[in-house]
Amino acid sequence: MKLPEGVSSKDFNAAMDEFRGIVGAPWVFTSDEDVGLYRDAYSPWWDEPEELVPSAAVAPATVEEVQAIVRVAGKYKIPLFAISTGKNLGYGGSAPNLTGSVIVDLKRMDKVIEVNDKRNFCIVEPGVSYFDLYKYIQDHKLKVMMDIPDPGWGSPLGNALDHGVGYTWNAYRDHYGSHCGMEVVLPNGELMRTGMAAVPGAKSWADNKYGYGAHVDGLFAQSNFGIVTKMGFWMMPEPEHFLSCRVSVPGYRDIVPLIDVVNYLEDQGLIGFPRYASSLDPMTLMMEPERVQGDKELLAMYSKPGVATAEEYEKYARSRGIDYWNVLLTFYGPKDAVYANWAYAKKKLAGIKDVKFEEVESYALPLDEATKQKVHHQVALGIPNMSIFSIGARSKVMPDPADGHVWLGSILPRSGEELIKAHEVFSQAMHDLGISPVVVGPFTAPQEWNHRTFIFMAPFFVSRSDKARNAKVREQYVKLVEIAAKHGWTEYRTGPAFQDVVAKTYSFNNNALLRFQTALKDAIDPDGIIAPGRGGIWPKRFRRDA
Amino acid sequence: MKLPEGVSSKDFNAAMDEFRGIVGAPWVFTSDEDVGLYRDAYSPWWDEPEELVPSAAVAPATVEEVQAIVRVAGKYKIPLFAISTGKNLGYGGSAPNLTGSVIVDLKRMDKVIEVNDKRNFCIVEPGVSYFDLYKYIQDHKLKVMMDIPDPGWGSPLGNALDHGVGYTWNAYRDHYGSHCGMEVVLPNGELMRTGMAAVPGAKSWADNKYGYGAHVDGLFAQSNFGIVTKMGFWMMPEPEHFLSCRVSVPGYRDIVPLIDVVNYLEDQGLIGFPRYASSLDPMTLMMEPERVQGDKELLAMYSKPGVATAEEYEKYARSRGIDYWNVLLTFYGPKDAVYANWAYAKKKLAGIKDVKFEEVESYALPLDEATKQKVHHQVALGIPNMSIFSIGARSKVMPDPADGHVWLGSILPRSGEELIKAHEVFSQAMHDLGISPVVVGPFTAPQEWNHRTFIFMAPFFVSRSDKARNAKVREQYVKLVEIAAKHGWTEYRTGPAFQDVVAKTYSFNNNALLRFQTALKDAIDPDGIIAPGRGGIWPKRFRRDA
Repeated sequence: MKLPEGVSSKDFNAAMDEFRGIVGAPWVFTSDEDVGLYRDAYSPWWDEPEELVPSAAVAPATVEEVQAIVRVAGKYKIPLFAISTGKNLGYGGSAPNLTGSVIVDLKRMDKVIEVNDKRNFCIVEPGVSYFDLYKYIQDHKLKVMMDIPDPGWGSPLGNALDHGVGYTWNAYRDHYGSHCGMEVVLPNGELMRTGMAAVPGAKSWADNKYGYGAHVDGLFAQSNFGIVTKMGFWMMPEPEHFLSCRVSVPGYRDIVPLIDVVNYLEDQGLIGFPRYASSLDPMTLMMEPERVQGDKELLAMYSKPGVATAEEYEKYARSRGIDYWNVLLTFYGPKDAVYANWAYAKKKLAGIKDVKFEEVESYALPLDEATKQKVHHQVALGIPNMSIFSIGARSKVMPDPADGHVWLGSILPRSGEELIKAHEVFSQAMHDLGISPVVVGPFTAPQEWNHRTFIFMAPFFVSRSDKARNAKVREQYVKLVEIAAKHGWTEYRTGPAFQDVVAKTYSFNNNALLRFQTALKDAIDPDGIIAPGRGGIWPKRFRRDA
Repeated sequence: MKLPEGVSSKDFNAAMDEFRGIVGAPWVFTSDEDVGLYRDAYSPWWDEPEELVPSAAVAPATVEEVQAIVRVAGKYKIPLFAISTGKNLGYGGSAPNLTGSVIVDLKRMDKVIEVNDKRNFCIVEPGVSYFDLYKYIQDHKLKVMMDIPDPGWGSPLGNALDHGVGYTWNAYRDHYGSHCGMEVVLPNGELMRTGMAAVPGAKSWADNKYGYGAHVDGLFAQSNFGIVTKMGFWMMPEPEHFLSCRVSVPGYRDIVPLIDVVNYLEDQGLIGFPRYASSLDPMTLMMEPERVQGDKELLAMYSKPGVATAEEYEKYARSRGIDYWNVLLTFYGPKDAVYANWAYAKKKLAGIKDVKFEEVESYALPLDEATKQKVHHQVALGIPNMSIFSIGARSKVMPDPADGHVWLGSILPRSGEELIKAHEVFSQAMHDLGISPVVVGPFTAPQEWNHRTFIFMAPFFVSRSDKARNAKVREQYVKLVEIAAKHGWTEYRTGPAFQDVVAKTYSFNNNALLRFQTALKDAIDPDGIIAPGRGGIWPKRFRRDA
C-alpha cells in the first residue's frame, strides 16, 4: 500500500477506523486485492513506480456519509479522490492524480431523484449509470431521451464533471453544459447547493441554471473544489421521428464547403450530431477487413514510409470510385419537419460537385424492442450500450494487440481549412515520432460531439507488459500536446497522467488562468483534501513550486 | 462628492491624478455634474442619503489602461465599479453597490473584434452596443442574427454579465449561457483569458467554452471577480424563414396544457421564444386604451377592493368572447420546415377545447428595409430598437405617472400549476401590501426569455419627487422577495438596492453558496477593489459581519 505523501501509518489507520465507523467496515477497502480494482486499467505507467494508485477506498451510501468522510480526511490531512462509476477508461479510469489518495467510491449513491417529462429534466446521484437511468425512464414510461457517450456504463454525473460528450441534438451533447444545479460537499465537509437548488423548497432545481449571483458550478468539473453528490440535467423530450442520412463527397478539399453547410444547419438546430467520417480511415476499414485485405495499393499507402499525402489518398479513392468524406446527418422532430430539413440540407449541399445523398435510417418513436436491436447507431437514439467502446478497447481491430488506450483530443475550430492544417501538422509530427501512419492521417475526420467544437482524436495504445512501449507513448503524447498547442490546438480532456501538461498549454499571460484557479483552490481547500492535481490544479501543500 | 468609506481625500485625489496620467485628464470625471450622469436614473432612493452614488468616473480606451486603473485603485484601496454602456435601467443603471466607488466606464472600448458567419460567433469589447453590433453586421453583410433584449442601447457583453435575456431561438436567449470565452482584468491588475482564449494563437476563442479544467467564467457575471474586457458569443446563422403564430385558449386553466405542449416543442428546438400573454392584462390593454375605456365591468374588476379572482376574470372574458390566454410561437428555419413545425404544433395543441390558431407574421429572410419597419416584434428578428423599453419607461401607459421602475423577476418552474399558485400568492401578497391590482393578477403571463425558465415579472414604480412612495416601494419589494422565497421562487436579477436581499434567499444550509462565493472573493480580491457588494458578495473589508 502506498500512503499519501506526508501521512503517517498511524494517522492513516486511524482515518480508516473512522471511515469504518461512518460507512461500516465492509465498505472500507484496504487490501491490495480490493484496492487494485481502482487502478487505471489503461494506465500508461502500468506496474511502474510512477503509476498513480490509491491507498484505499471508501464507499459511502449517503450525502451525510460523504460529509463525514471529508471531515475525517481533513482531520488527518488525507487526500481524497471521488469517482462515480469510475469507468472513465482512456481518460484515467478510477485512479487518482496523486498516489496514495483514498478513493471515495460513490457507486452506492445510485438514486434517481426525479425524471420529469413535462419540464424535461432529471436529477441524479453520482452512482446512477446511463443504463440505470435508461431503465428508470423505460420502467416509468417517461417521454424523454438521454444523451449518452459510447460506453453506457458511465454515470451522467461523472461524465458531465469530466466534460464528457454525446451524440444527440445540439446542446444536449455537451453534458456539463446541459447540467442544471448541483449539490456539493465542500472540502470542509459543508454541504452546498447551487443555482435554484440553493433555494429551500424550490421546484426549479433543474429549470434554471444560475439562480442569482456568481455561478460557481464550473469549479466542480474537471477540477477539485468539492465532491458533487447530486446534479440536475436538462433532457430532450422524445421526438416524433428520427432520421439519419449520409452525405458523401468525392474530393479531399470538399470537406471545406461540407463543414460550412453543416455548421449552418447545426447552429440553427436543424440537425443533431453530424458524424463525419472518411471511407479511407484505416480505423473504419479495419472493421470491414474483407474490404482491405488484398487491396495492395491501399495497404501500401497505409504502411508507406513517411506520410501518404491527401493527394495520394484522393487519387486512390477516385480510381476506385470511393467517396473521400461523408457525414451522417441526424434529424429529430416531427416527421414532416425532419424530411423538410433533410430536403433543405440537400439543397444547401447541392453546390458540391458530385455530392451524393443517401437516407440511412428512419424511425417513428418510440421504438419497439425489436427495432431497438436493429438500430445502427443506438447512442444517437439515446439507447445506452457498450458496442463502440468494446470495438475500441483491446480488440483486434486496433493496430498491434493493445491492452488499452489513452486519447489525445485536440480542440479545433469548426472549419475545413483548419482541419486540413491539422492533417498536415499531426501527420508530420506523428511520422517524426515514429507513430504508425494508420493512426492519424489526411483521412482523420473531426468529431463534433461537443456542440460547436471539433475534436481531433488520436488514440495511443498502451501495454500491461511492455514498459518501453508505454514510455514511448508517454513521450509521444506529451510531444504531440506541445506541437498541437503551438498551433492553437489544445485538449478538451485527458487522464491524470497528462493533466498538468495539458493545463499548462492554456498559457496566456504566464498561465494566468491556472494561477487564478490555484489561488481559488488554496482558499477553499487549504489542506488539499479534494483530488489534488485534478485538472492541473495542485493545492499549496503538494505544489512543486510552492 | 461622497468618497468611498475609509479612503482619505488625499489618497482619493492622488488616485485621480494617476488616473489622469493613464487615460488623459478629459477622461476622468469628478465634477458633480459629470458624476451625476452615472446615478441610477431609476434609483428607489433618489436624492436620499442612502442613494448609491459614485464618487467619480474614469473612461479607459484600452485593456492596458483598465489594468493600470485597477493597479492604482489597489494602491489607494479605492473600490471600482465597471459599466459597459450603463443602460441597465430597472436593474440599477450605472450606479455602484457601494457609494463612493469609482465608475470604470468602458464605453470607449467599442471594438467589434470579429464576427464570423461561417462558425457563427462574435467577439466584442464592453462598449459595443447592440446597435453597434447590428450596424457592423449589416455593413459587412454577414449572415448572422443577434439575440437582443428590449432596449437596443445596451451592450452584449454587459447584458450577458447581468444575466440578461432575449427573444430568439432557444439557448441564444440566455446571453450569459451563449457566451464563449472571456478576457478579464483581475483585481490585482493581471490579465487573464478563459476557455480557448487562454491558448495563445488559438482561433477557437468562440467555438469552445471550456478549454480544459475548472471553468471560472461564472465568477464574472452578476458578480465582482474582475473587469471583463472582451467576450465571445455564439450567434445564430440567419435562417431562411421566420414565422410567428398565435395560439389562443379561452379558459384560465387552459394555461396548464398549453404550457406542457409549448415546453415539449421548445425543448426539441422546434420554436423560439414563446411569448405568453393574457388579453386581460391591464398592461397590455392600456396600450389599447380605446378597448378599456367605457368597459365599466372591466374597470371595476381592475379597481376591485381586494383581488378579482381568476373565475371572475374568466367569466368576464367568456361573456365578451375574449380568449383568456394566448402565446405567440416563433419558428426559425427553412420555410417548409417552419410550416411543418407549425402544423405539428397545431396537432399537439388541438386537444385544448376551443383553441384558436392564427398566423401572424411570415417573412423570408433577410428582410428589406421597408419590411423591417413593418415587423411587429423586431427583437424576435434580432433588430435592435427602443420601442418596448420606451413604452415601459415613464410613459403614460403605466399606472400613475412614474419616473422609473424597478423589476421584480421571480424564477418559477415552467408549469401551469405553479403559475396558478404564483397568481394566488402574488395577488394576495400585493393586495395585502396595498399594491394596485392592475400590476399583477390572475392575468399575469410568464416570461420565458431565459430558455427553460419562467420569470414572473412585477414592476414597481418609483418617483424622483415622492420619497414616501419610494420608501413604500422598497418595503413592498423586500416583502415580496421574502414571500416569494417562501414558495421557492427567487429572483434571477435585481438592482444593487436589493441584491443583498435576493442573494440571501438562496439560503440552503445557512447560505452556504453565498459563504462559498465570499470566501473565493476574499482570496482573489483581498482589498475589495472590484465592485464590492455586487451580486450580494461583500469583501471582508466592507462586510458588516466581518
